[in-house]
Amino acid sequence: VISDYIGFLAIFVFATTGVLACASKTQNIVSLVMLGIITALGGGTIRDLILMVPVFWLSEFYYVWIALAGSLAAFLLFNLFRRYSKILYYLDGLGVALFAVEAIDKSFSLGTNAGVAVMMGIITGIGGGLIRDVLTDRPTLIITRDLYITPILTGCIVCVGMLSRGIDEIVSSFLAISLIFGFRSAAIYFDLSLPDWLHLKAVE
Amino acid sequence: VISDYIGFLAIFVFATTGVLACASKTQNIVSLVMLGIITALGGGTIRDLILMVPVFWLSEFYYVWIALAGSLAAFLLFNLFRRYSKILYYLDGLGVALFAVEAIDKSFSLGTNAGVAVMMGIITGIGGGLIRDVLTDRPTLIITRDLYITPILTGCIVCVGMLSRGIDEIVSSFLAISLIFGFRSAAIYFDLSLPDWLHLKAVE
Amino acid sequence: VISDYIGFLAIFVFATTGVLACASKTQNIVSLVMLGIITALGGGTIRDLILMVPVFWLSEFYYVWIALAGSLAAFLLFNLFRRYSKILYYLDGLGVALFAVEAIDKSFSLGTNAGVAVMMGIITGIGGGLIRDVLTDRPTLIITRDLYITPILTGCIVCVGMLSRGIDEIVSSFLAISLIFGFRSAAIYFDLSLPDWLHLKAVE
Repeated sequence: VISDYIGFLAIFVFATTGVLACASKTQNIVSLVMLGIITALGGGTIRDLILMVPVFWLSEFYYVWIALAGSLAAFLLFNLFRRYSKILYYLDGLGVALFAVEAIDKSFSLGTNAGVAVMMGIITGIGGGLIRDVLTDRPTLIITRDLYITPILTGCIVCVGMLSRGIDEIVSSFLAISLIFGFRSAAIYFDLSLPDWLHLKAVE
Repeated sequence: VISDYIGFLAIFVFATTGVLACASKTQNIVSLVMLGIITALGGGTIRDLILMVPVFWLSEFYYVWIALAGSLAAFLLFNLFRRYSKILYYLDGLGVALFAVEAIDKSFSLGTNAGVAVMMGIITGIGGGLIRDVLTDRPTLIITRDLYITPILTGCIVCVGMLSRGIDEIVSSFLAISLIFGFRSAAIYFDLSLPDWLHLKAVE
Repeated sequence: VISDYIGFLAIFVFATTGVLACASKTQNIVSLVMLGIITALGGGTIRDLILMVPVFWLSEFYYVWIALAGSLAAFLLFNLFRRYSKILYYLDGLGVALFAVEAIDKSFSLGTNAGVAVMMGIITGIGGGLIRDVLTDRPTLIITRDLYITPILTGCIVCVGMLSRGIDEIVSSFLAISLIFGFRSAAIYFDLSLPDWLHLKAVE
């Protein structure tokens, strides 16, 4: 039950970050709210399409209302939200963590293997943000943010590893969410990048 | 039956607008025709994927032929079509209206709720144009056209509202199509934008 | 069985070309490997979604491992691969040919008509590359490569034509793959474009 509330918070936060991220591209309320909703619901939509299960917001439509509320809040209180955008980065990190781990649980409950579960965790975590970036003609997070996908990937592998070894689902989920959120927060706070040897070195 | 013919016209028109919009990016006949087809069929494809029903052009393949015909016509008669591109804008507005209302009918016939029906109307109306813009590296209509989504949104809400109140489907559809087309035409003709208070005001 | 090995090679090669193509946009190992995997698996994923069959890498997860191996190889041996990138262009042409013909076989085995089979061949051949280009903010292959889609289209039509006339599947597949690969190789080797009369001529 508490995870439901955290899930709602994640959708709300994703929608607000969507509006904030797109505000330099369009100022139109309808476009901004749509982009907020797409950011919040996009990742889970791709996940459900690939897993061949009904798209979550068709049957649980309140997710759309929450995304709408988050988008409108960010539009109306834009200057307030922008001033505390650093807080939003952390909330976005929490949202990504929740999305990824929730997707792993959903995959396993459908009987997929460990690798598929990891893929679904990553796709769900970053899918909405990727669609948002593409629709607003911004460089996508896959090429701009050095330590965004890595924490998700790490957390997903650890989570799937724990679940495969029979560790309790609540314990695994909690530890994986903490790991992703902690790793991502450290990356934000200390402005971390991947070490140099994990970057391509082209010989000219 | 008459709605079928209007639907065919909408697919044809969408394909021609796709070719016209992309002509500054590529002059290759194969690429242009593909982009025309994608513009015409893209929105309905996304709608069907999300609704988990068979994609419409798999079973009704003549839609692909109509899209192909529209694309080829626009390629062969490019200079003619371009001279009357203003007319095409209005036809595009009519096509969007038809697509949106058709999607609402399809959603309701599958038993979805009112909110999902509105979402499907919007997605079907703008989906093809969004894919076209993304594939040709143009700023997408979501950020460039001030009064494109708003008429669709308004018409979809009105249509769903009438249907939920038990108003006859033909009457509701006709009124909603007129509303979207009229609103969009006015926006084109008078070069309207959303009023200022519906735009984000950032305090620097 | 031999077609399985060729299919594995195609996935591997696509992944390497994905990494090479994106190396100017990001040098991060995690992002590059993800882009390699997306390039290799994207086309088939869209094909399966539209055909409403389970996405192939969910049940045959070794395809993800092969894509991962190809991406890592391209990352680790980047300078070697880049030096022989001309070879990779030809291998990419072979991969596209294999993907397209495999998609036609899959479509027909699901009972689709000839037109759908051609569409699926094209979508599968170019889908992964399109997603890769969009995510890395590069002009997509649909507008940059003059003779990339044309060989696929030609080969798909010939393949579907032969199959519809009852010609043996192995013979048809082999001829179509040869045609696509040969046509594409000639385009690479001689730097061919579509003839002028197949390009749009705008009157200013």
